[in-house]
Amino acid sequence: MRGKDTLRILGISGSLRNGSYNTALLGAAGALVPEGVEFVTLSLDNVPMYNADLEAAGDPEPVSLLKRQIASADGLVLATPEYNYSVSGALKNALDWASRPPRSSPLQKKPIAIMGVGGMLGTVRAQMHLREILLHSDARVLSRPEVYVSRGSEKFDAQGKLIDEPTRLQLKKLMQAFREWILHWKLELAH
Amino acid sequence: MRGKDTLRILGISGSLRNGSYNTALLGAAGALVPEGVEFVTLSLDNVPMYNADLEAAGDPEPVSLLKRQIASADGLVLATPEYNYSVSGALKNALDWASRPPRSSPLQKKPIAIMGVGGMLGTVRAQMHLREILLHSDARVLSRPEVYVSRGSEKFDAQGKLIDEPTRLQLKKLMQAFREWILHWKLELAH
Amino acid sequence: MRGKDTLRILGISGSLRNGSYNTALLGAAGALVPEGVEFVTLSLDNVPMYNADLEAAGDPEPVSLLKRQIASADGLVLATPEYNYSVSGALKNALDWASRPPRSSPLQKKPIAIMGVGGMLGTVRAQMHLREILLHSDARVLSRPEVYVSRGSEKFDAQGKLIDEPTRLQLKKLMQAFREWILHWKLELAH
Amino acid sequence: MRGKDTLRILGISGSLRNGSYNTALLGAAGALVPEGVEFVTLSLDNVPMYNADLEAAGDPEPVSLLKRQIASADGLVLATPEYNYSVSGALKNALDWASRPPRSSPLQKKPIAIMGVGGMLGTVRAQMHLREILLHSDARVLSRPEVYVSRGSEKFDAQGKLIDEPTRLQLKKLMQAFREWILHWKLELAH
Repeated sequence: MRGKDTLRILGISGSLRNGSYNTALLGAAGALVPEGVEFVTLSLDNVPMYNADLEAAGDPEPVSLLKRQIASADGLVLATPEYNYSVSGALKNALDWASRPPRSSPLQKKPIAIMGVGGMLGTVRAQMHLREILLHSDARVLSRPEVYVSRGSEKFDAQGKLIDEPTRLQLKKLMQAFREWILHWKLELAH
Repeated sequence: MRGKDTLRILGISGSLRNGSYNTALLGAAGALVPEGVEFVTLSLDNVPMYNADLEAAGDPEPVSLLKRQIASADGLVLATPEYNYSVSGALKNALDWASRPPRSSPLQKKPIAIMGVGGMLGTVRAQMHLREILLHSDARVLSRPEVYVSRGSEKFDAQGKLIDEPTRLQLKKLMQAFREWILHWKLELAH
Repeated sequence: MRGKDTLRILGISGSLRNGSYNTALLGAAGALVPEGVEFVTLSLDNVPMYNADLEAAGDPEPVSLLKRQIASADGLVLATPEYNYSVSGALKNALDWASRPPRSSPLQKKPIAIMGVGGMLGTVRAQMHLREILLHSDARVLSRPEVYVSRGSEKFDAQGKLIDEPTRLQLKKLMQAFREWILHWKLELAH
Repeated sequence: MRGKDTLRILGISGSLRNGSYNTALLGAAGALVPEGVEFVTLSLDNVPMYNADLEAAGDPEPVSLLKRQIASADGLVLATPEYNYSVSGALKNALDWASRPPRSSPLQKKPIAIMGVGGMLGTVRAQMHLREILLHSDARVLSRPEVYVSRGSEKFDAQGKLIDEPTRLQLKKLMQAFREWILHWKLELAH
């Protein structure tokens, strides 16, 4: 049962494949949240490509669900792969939908934490793009700690279980810092 | 009839909506190509979201078509809207597919010209991201002239016809420079 | 006389020339601060180039002054020109000094507002770089409003007086939002 | 003696300190150039801060030397540290001078190779900024191989000698690819 003071964090992975390291990273983060935090995930599988004509006819159900889930969450965690030195098209597309319409977007001022696993440099370029992308919605993106996980195949076992202790520690610190970050912005609202 | 020395340029718009200014900009560019250049466009409407599992089962037909069209073109023109200070998810997704597999991607060393219409700043941020994205495929992205078209509603009429003479001139210069750029890289191949 | 609740904002221009539009923009901003805000500026004229050997021997006096002024200010306003699609070397160099040593840098968690005048696109590329640069110090960079001033020669008179009313209004809104931003982070410290 | 077909490459380090890993990296690269390539370096020690008033009075001698050296080189190699997720102020400042005036800048269409040593991620963020910075001058920046050297203290001995074989191999490949790149653009000029 979710207590009235429980924080609800929504996790979204930018990779659609089964067995994605980013989805696995998100799962590992979800298992490491501090007391009093509920962590749920949402798949981007059924989100159609953003098209303003489609939007004008009313958000398709997977988009509507995405926006409601973001709106009702106290914070959003994004795990991004790095495709072509940037975020995945799938993640970008989800954010394109969620950023609309600008003034009432659920991303507006939303506390967000980011992370990623991929390549030799741990998705650092994708995360820099992601920060610029989220700036447009004036989201409250946590700056520290940065979590760049390289060489996914060495960090997860065949079942997608995180087996790297330093990474586990990083995730734990990130989730703790994110809880503080969310509470900080709630405090602001209370004044 | 396409002569043996005719250059073939493929144009892709990053916006899916009917009446898109970027699609209109692409059409205007296509009408301004120099002698000896054939300009065709391809829609991203049916390209599914990139998913490595899907890819492993064989490229879906719209992806296969996209990759063949890029491969057979002498050059690629990308017209990008700016969503959230970056390229659209739809364009990013198409490039994610086309960039695979890295070593045989049709984007490798492909001459590419970029442009965009949107907002007050003419998609400059989206174009900076686009250059970084294309760097991953070692594409040959033309640097000049830069075409940043702001305030689309003042530049196109209700039928999507470009009515702004300075923009028309910019497009003409871009297409001329792009023809030179393509020929430059063909010359290299001939040696 | 500065009251005990007066906020002190330090303004720094990234351009060294006399008659700089960015220095003029900063001056205009300083004249538009809300009640209860004191605005002072600091020139980067005498700041030497960052050199770790020099630093090891003790910060040169202009660097020491720069760091003390930032440390004692409640907020920092940076006006950046755009040179080569990025911030000026002079501004980057000042931030390189001020960011050191990382753990006790006066930029750490400092509330910062940014603006710029230059070119056709109002320094948007420089400002995107600046945000990435300041992320390293975990500075609290205000996101809105964005102030991109293009065509400086039309916005200022020969004496460097801002003569463009829309720009004046933007500056006023920026300084008001920045005051709120500073107070927000002070509130946090008080808890 | 420099033969008439010898290529001349100029190397510049963005770090000013004695014992800089980037200066050491540059030295290692210079020792690995292919036959027929002469490699010289230039220090940024005496380059003053860019100031348009100073420039209007005539380039100071260190600036004039910098611009002449770049102009007479067939290619430029830049080794950048990463300060605050970007290039050093010293390197940015040198490029600010060299980029002026735009139409006759020695950076225009200059073949350039980039590399860097620093931090855990090997200066990747600085190098992304550097590519954007050089885009302004329409420089011909080599895209591959990318050389991101992390953990400098493990790669160089106390005398600044490169002791890491994989890095040496990367540098060798970079210099070979750069020679090809320079020759490519010379071929173009010959037509």
